[in-house]
Parts: sequence; structure tokens; C-alpha cells
Amino acid sequence: MSEAFDAVDVIRAKRDRQPLSDEQIDWVIDAYTRGAVADEQMSSLAMAVLLNGMERREIARWTAAMIASGERMDFSSLSRPTADKHSTGGVGDKITLPLAPLVAACGAAVPQLSGRGLGHTGGTLDKLESIPGWQATLSNDAMLAQLDDVGAVICAAGDGLAPADKKLYALRDVTGTVEAIPLIASSIMSKKIAEGTGSLVLDVKVGSGAFMKDAEQAAELARTMVALGTDAGVKTVALLTDMSTPLGLTAGNALEVRESVEVLAGGGPADVVELTVTLAREMLAAAGVDSDDPADALKDGRAMDVWKRMIRAQGGDPDAELPVAKETQVVEADADGTLTRLDALQVGVAAWRLGAGRARKEDPVQAGAGVEMHAKPGDVVRKGQPLLTLHTDTPEKFARAQESLAGAWTIGEGGAGRTPLVIDRVD
Amino acid sequence: MSEAFDAVDVIRAKRDRQPLSDEQIDWVIDAYTRGAVADEQMSSLAMAVLLNGMERREIARWTAAMIASGERMDFSSLSRPTADKHSTGGVGDKITLPLAPLVAACGAAVPQLSGRGLGHTGGTLDKLESIPGWQATLSNDAMLAQLDDVGAVICAAGDGLAPADKKLYALRDVTGTVEAIPLIASSIMSKKIAEGTGSLVLDVKVGSGAFMKDAEQAAELARTMVALGTDAGVKTVALLTDMSTPLGLTAGNALEVRESVEVLAGGGPADVVELTVTLAREMLAAAGVDSDDPADALKDGRAMDVWKRMIRAQGGDPDAELPVAKETQVVEADADGTLTRLDALQVGVAAWRLGAGRARKEDPVQAGAGVEMHAKPGDVVRKGQPLLTLHTDTPEKFARAQESLAGAWTIGEGGAGRTPLVIDRVD
Repeated sequence: MSEAFDAVDVIRAKRDRQPLSDEQIDWVIDAYTRGAVADEQMSSLAMAVLLNGMERREIARWTAAMIASGERMDFSSLSRPTADKHSTGGVGDKITLPLAPLVAACGAAVPQLSGRGLGHTGGTLDKLESIPGWQATLSNDAMLAQLDDVGAVICAAGDGLAPADKKLYALRDVTGTVEAIPLIASSIMSKKIAEGTGSLVLDVKVGSGAFMKDAEQAAELARTMVALGTDAGVKTVALLTDMSTPLGLTAGNALEVRESVEVLAGGGPADVVELTVTLAREMLAAAGVDSDDPADALKDGRAMDVWKRMIRAQGGDPDAELPVAKETQVVEADADGTLTRLDALQVGVAAWRLGAGRARKEDPVQAGAGVEMHAKPGDVVRKGQPLLTLHTDTPEKFARAQESLAGAWTIGEGGAGRTPLVIDRVD
Repeated sequence: MSEAFDAVDVIRAKRDRQPLSDEQIDWVIDAYTRGAVADEQMSSLAMAVLLNGMERREIARWTAAMIASGERMDFSSLSRPTADKHSTGGVGDKITLPLAPLVAACGAAVPQLSGRGLGHTGGTLDKLESIPGWQATLSNDAMLAQLDDVGAVICAAGDGLAPADKKLYALRDVTGTVEAIPLIASSIMSKKIAEGTGSLVLDVKVGSGAFMKDAEQAAELARTMVALGTDAGVKTVALLTDMSTPLGLTAGNALEVRESVEVLAGGGPADVVELTVTLAREMLAAAGVDSDDPADALKDGRAMDVWKRMIRAQGGDPDAELPVAKETQVVEADADGTLTRLDALQVGVAAWRLGAGRARKEDPVQAGAGVEMHAKPGDVVRKGQPLLTLHTDTPEKFARAQESLAGAWTIGEGGAGRTPLVIDRVD
């Protein structure tokens, strides 16, 4: 009984709407990491935080305590300024793939510590693992060397960064406490600050396919994270971007790599290009790099060069054939008119059920599975034309995927305008 | 994965202020008892219930589900109607000791399944265990036989009644979720309904020494429990009674037994007598027993006769000397005047620290330890007269007990009236 605080007192304080002291926060994060605060205590505290909130000071301290639970990385030896980006996740969100090499091609160093997917949003590492030979895991030294040499690295976050967050995230996932803005913000920012980036651009998704369904909540999350980054000396900017419909024309691992390579080759869907270039400009500005227009680096092959070097540096063959699903099934448009809506969540769930995502951490994913879209909101379609193509290695999955697509689109009269991709900016 | 519901969906519903369905409640209680809902899931649900509340239907179903987790007792073979009483616990609350034999002497059968103390309020079983030879544990058959023969039994509740409550109570104790009115009410009432009593009188304490510091909260708890009992066919009445100052002149195990025996002998402190007789009248009325005034049964020795038979039936010697603490220390009045306040919580904590209570379930208690009071609010005192006597077997505990008494009383001018003992009645 040499603990500085009693877990029940800390829980009661938050339950009764009192702010936690710096000392209470430091203790509870450390004690939870050590196992002196039990899972059932941390989960009731997390629910109290979700329902009663935290002040800016509390969130900053909570984040600092999670950073202090592990190691910090140091990019100060690099000759280039570092620029990182984080997306809160969406359907068809492959932006990291073209973005990291593009920003590196324009002069910043881009350390992208990424994760695997869970549920209906895909994971960046799952996507890259569809490239033959590519390895997600790097030592810190290998990562630094690649950043210095190639300028961009996308790899798995090591276990050493913010272990308290890792433990807490797994707990929140099973206790209905994921959706707490202070906990989401501190989870994301603890890893980004511990990673040691000098600047950070946040892509906060809003809409059916995003974690935040509501623009006001998304804006609150964005403001909270920008404040945390700024307080920690990281130049931080957030964009709120639309996730009511999928990004691009593909959702699925190899499908999205193929689309990303099209963008790096100067083509690809307009929305993916727009968001990639917009985020690249923000990252370069935040890192203080005075470069020419990143759109040019997509067109002239400089970004593609960095992509190939980045993939090769991690054992992958950028020129190899990508895996293709064994079976496909076409979904046809059921009317003539304008596609006015194509729901991100429903397409994401369909891709997941086809085998692109996993229900549990230990599940494998299918490299070739997913959904290919042949029209996006605003496009005119004719009854009977292919609207979607479903891809899977396991055709018995088609039925459940089709179920999840019931009512997923609307075909109407006239030209419903597309929602603007970038909804707001917070700095 | 053959579970009817997902725990996270149930948690999210309550978190998002939706009422839980009957099926969700039945499932979550059963699954928690079986271990299919984990402690960390139940604790975040409990925090959501604490902060977002439950409707009357939800509380009734939650209670029914806890009852269904275990066995039910059956008193229908008894020749007398059953009357039970539950107190939410207070400092010096030894009322069960004289009350159970008194009500039995007046014609009802009194099954008192009791608990041990935790924290600053004493437990009825701890008090009775200071009587040489007395045993708290009885089989269900032995309990029924004693009820039939003697008319009163005070014993430990078996593990078979509402095991879900037992598991949930232990969890709430360590997760800051004790103070949820729906959970307190269902915890108490599930055991009382499963026990099978025909009528029940609730003594809901209000004030510093009680669980509920606030009369409005206590009234809500009382109304909730009366509704639960009534819905389950148990004739239920609640009294709100004052716990701003200790009951009687003693707090501690053997000290309280001695005071209870004084009451059974027709003497004892006025407040203990008043509450005992008031509760006895309520219990007899609720049980439909038409008896003469229970105050007479204290005066003429009938209650004492039942007490002695009840103690002997459980192996105790009612005529044996009670344990006495090895050491005492007197606390003197520090002014002349009227004692206008003597704080229940502080006296309770002092008794606990002297050894009368336990910090953890497995700790032993000292039979002789506690606090003896020489004056109560309303009494005139003189500077230097003994105000309290502290009793313990371990004199090194005096210092911490004295600390907890700092500012515990006020001696002022004139005659501050006593607070009425019975504040309100709910039926």
C-alpha cells in the first residue's frame, strides 16, 4: 500500500465532475501501466471521462503521462524537417500511400507510423502488405536510416511508444468507451508527440464512414488535438474532411494500392488527388519547407520515384503484379439518373465482409478483396450499368456483402452537387 | 459466439441514455454471472448507470434478473407472518439486535440475513460475534427451524441468494460505482425478495454517518426500493431517519451489544428505544400482526426472553461477560455549554480506527474496540468532563482515532433542539 493515490478516489472525482489533478493523472496512467490500477477500474474511469469530459489541462497532462509511459524518438539528426499526417480513418482512405512519397519528394522527411485496420475502415499497413515482399516492421535505427536516405517511411509503430495508450486502447475497444473525445485525442497525440515529429497535419473525417458522424464533434476533436500538439511544441493543423462517401473508387487492400499508384503516376480519381495535394501543401507549410507546387511532383514522376525507393527499402517490389481476388460479382444500377448518394459506411462494411478487413486483431485479411466503384455521387448512371464490383477469394461472402449494401445509394433527378471534400480547417 | 447480445452494444445504449430492454438486462446479468461479460465491461456499464440513471421498469427487471441468478427461500411453512427490516447502515446502528427479538415477541417471524461491516459503519454479525460462542452461519434448514421455534434469527446470508449481486457488489466497491441509486436499490431488494419475506421495513439513513448525505437522494432511494418491493408482492415501507449523529451512546461491537441488552432490559438510550419501537410497530403493521404495544414487550421482559433463546439457538451464551478492550482513553469537553453537534461520520471513523471495523473484507475486528459517548446533542456539558471514552486493545491506535475526531463536535450557547429521529415515511 505505498501507492500515492487510491484508484477509487480518482474515479469518484471524475464521476463527481471534479477535474483531476496533475498528480492524480500521472499516477493513474503509471499505475494502470504497471497493473496497480485494474482494468475494471480504468474502464469505469474511462466511462466517467466519456460522460463528464476533461478540461484542456487534464487532456494535456493525460497525454504527457501516456508519452512518459514509454520511449520517445528523436529525429533531430535528420537534415530535413519532419512532417507527419494522421487520419482518423475512413472508407477508401489510401491517402497516406501517395502522400508520404509526395511530401518527401518536395523536401520534408515523412515518418508515418501506421496501424492495421479493425472494423470497416482499412489499415495502411494491411494495404501495403498486399505488395509482394513488403515488410511493415522496422527497427528504430532502420527507420531513421530510411528517413535520411529515402525521405519517407511507412511502418508499424513499435511497442515502445506510449505503451499506456496501447493497453488503454484495447480496453476502450471492449468497454464502450472508444468515443470519448479526450481519450481519442490523447491516444492519437501521445503517439505522434512521442514519435518526435516537428509538424503534424490531422485529417479528421466527418460522415457516415468516419468515427465522428457529426461535424461539431469532429471540430471539437480537431481543436482538442491541435491544442495538444501546439502545447507540446509540434506545429499542428487539422482539416475536417468529408467521409459521407468513400474516397476514390476503391475500398480494399490491393485495390487501393493500385489506385494510389495511379495517383503517383499523375492520374487517379479527382478526390484522391485533391486531398493528397491539399494535405501535402499543409504538411510542407507546417514543416516550413518552401517547395514548388506538390501537384507538379505527382505529374513529373518525382513522387513515384520516392514511392518505388520507399517500397524497395522495406523489401517490396513496386513493379510486381498485385494480388487479384479469385471471384468478382457486379452490382448494377437499378435506375437511370444521377447518383446522389453512395454511403461510405455501407461500402466499408461490404469491403470488410468480403475479406478486406478483420473483426478481431488476430484475423488475416485478403489482399485482393474489396469493393470497386464505377460511379461516385454527381455522376450520371444508366439502369443496368455496373455500379460496383465486389471482389473476394471466398464467394460465399458475396451474400452478406450484398446485404450490407441494401439502400447504400440513391439515384435521383438532376445534378446533386458533390459535398466539398475539405469542410473546415483548424490551426 | 452464441451470445444473444454484445456487451459493448449494451454499454453503448446506456452510455447514450437509451433504456435497456428487458432482454438486454436479463442477458447482461446472466452473462456477467457466467463470466461472459467481463469485469471491465460491467464496471463501465455500472458507471454509465450511475451517471445516466435507469427507469423504474429497468430497475425492476435488473432486480428480477439478479434474483433469478440464484436460489429463492420459502417461508410459507411458518405458522407466523414474516417481517424483515433493512438499514442502509449508520454509526452506532445496533437496532437489529433489540428489534428482531422484540418483533418476534409480538408475534411475527423475523428472518434477518445480515452482513459484516466494511469501513466506518459496523456490521450486525460483527457485533453479535462478540458474544462468546455465537455462530453467524446457519443452514437454510436450521434457519427455518429457529424461525419456527424462537421466531427470530440473525445470521449470515448464504452464497445462494442473488450471486450476481454478490459479484457486482464486490466490483462496484473497487470501481467507484457504489453510489448509484438503481444499483443500491436493486442490490438490497434482490436479496430481500429472494429471501422470501412477506413484509419489509426499510430504515434509510440520512446524514454525515450514512451512505446518503442528502435527504432528497435518500428519499429517492427509499421510493425506488418501496416500488421494487411492492412490484414484487412484498409489503414494503421505508422510514428516512437521521444519521447526522451516532445512534445511542456506543459505536463498537461488544459496546453495542451491551447497549442493546440494556434496551431489552427496559432501559437504554432514548433514541435507540424510540427507533426500535417505531420500527417494530411498522414491521408488525406491515406483517398484518395485531399485537399490543411493542414498548410493553421491552418493559416486561418478553423481548429479552426471545433474545436469550435466539442467542442460545446459535451457540451463544447470553449471560456471559462480553469482551472489554485492554485500554481506554478519555476525551474531555473543551468548553462549558450545550453540545450542539457530534458528527456521526467522525465518530464512526474513530471507532473503525480503534479496531471496531475493517478496511478489507479479510481483516479481523476487535470485539472490545470502539467509542463510548457520555453526551449527545442537546445535553449540557462542562469543560473537563468526559465527552468520549475510546476503547482499543492496541493503544497505538489512539492517535489516529483522535485525529479523526478533530472538529467532530460543537459546544455552544443555549439549547439547540435535537433533530427529529424519523424524518419521513414512504409507503
